[in-house]
Amino acid sequence: MLGRTYDTQNCSAARALELAGERWSLLIIRDALFAGCSRFGDFQRSLGVAPNILTARLDSFVAAGLMQRRRYSEHPEHYEYLLTGKGRDLAPVIVALSAWGDRHAAPHGPPIIYEHAACGSEIHQQIRCADCEEQVRPADIRARPGPGLLPPVPPDDRAAGHR
Amino acid sequence: MLGRTYDTQNCSAARALELAGERWSLLIIRDALFAGCSRFGDFQRSLGVAPNILTARLDSFVAAGLMQRRRYSEHPEHYEYLLTGKGRDLAPVIVALSAWGDRHAAPHGPPIIYEHAACGSEIHQQIRCADCEEQVRPADIRARPGPGLLPPVPPDDRAAGHR
Repeated sequence: MLGRTYDTQNCSAARALELAGERWSLLIIRDALFAGCSRFGDFQRSLGVAPNILTARLDSFVAAGLMQRRRYSEHPEHYEYLLTGKGRDLAPVIVALSAWGDRHAAPHGPPIIYEHAACGSEIHQQIRCADCEEQVRPADIRARPGPGLLPPVPPDDRAAGHR
Repeated sequence: MLGRTYDTQNCSAARALELAGERWSLLIIRDALFAGCSRFGDFQRSLGVAPNILTARLDSFVAAGLMQRRRYSEHPEHYEYLLTGKGRDLAPVIVALSAWGDRHAAPHGPPIIYEHAACGSEIHQQIRCADCEEQVRPADIRARPGPGLLPPVPPDDRAAGHR
């Protein structure tokens, strides 16, 4: 059901893309987050995506715990799809993609402005150092191995010859 | 050459996904940004991706201005692929995806830690209000139409019956 394309990649970005990196996935999440979409027809009107693809994506989001399916009508039976906390946590990904597009692919200015609901001002995404609190530019980010890079193989898996 | 899947979507996130949302694209960018990959063989060893797909992605990055192709050997002729500023600006997207994966899909802890090169401390991505400077949670982000939502149709296009 869920993609396993990046199976060999021990990387959190790859894990995120496995759950939300299929074609249309992040735009469905965008619409659920910011356009008030929850019903199948909402997403279809907003995206114009083929129904079978939309069904597959919504089902995979439910399976992955990004969305919950809730019945809102009994006769006929109809369901809506609501983001969970895990799904809502993808907001920074949408914001980052939008910021890039605003900068590099929006000749007429941003089509959508993301604002702080409390005060109506634009929001900005920043990368900061946890220690020195400085704002960090992409060129000043370095990657190093973390504790999850080579997790210990459980004894059962070793015995069964799994990798 | 470049995807036009999201043609009907006037949205900067969709524009970004058109240039960098194909399967493997963002992991290629990740390796160029953070794993020192620049040659075809570097990317292939790191990703294990089929050569025809890797070729297509690198070519599309060059066409989109995310990478530059530079010859590093004349006999035999070999090229390397270097991120441009436009390509490097995708770093916050990788960081956002990784943060999500670290939180929701890394039972053994983060496989990769992104750090501030200057001091070695971890980096964190924050969304802040440009005005009140507060840190903004996903639930407190609202979207509104921006200047690029319905750009004026140039007279020539109107005459030719384009939308």
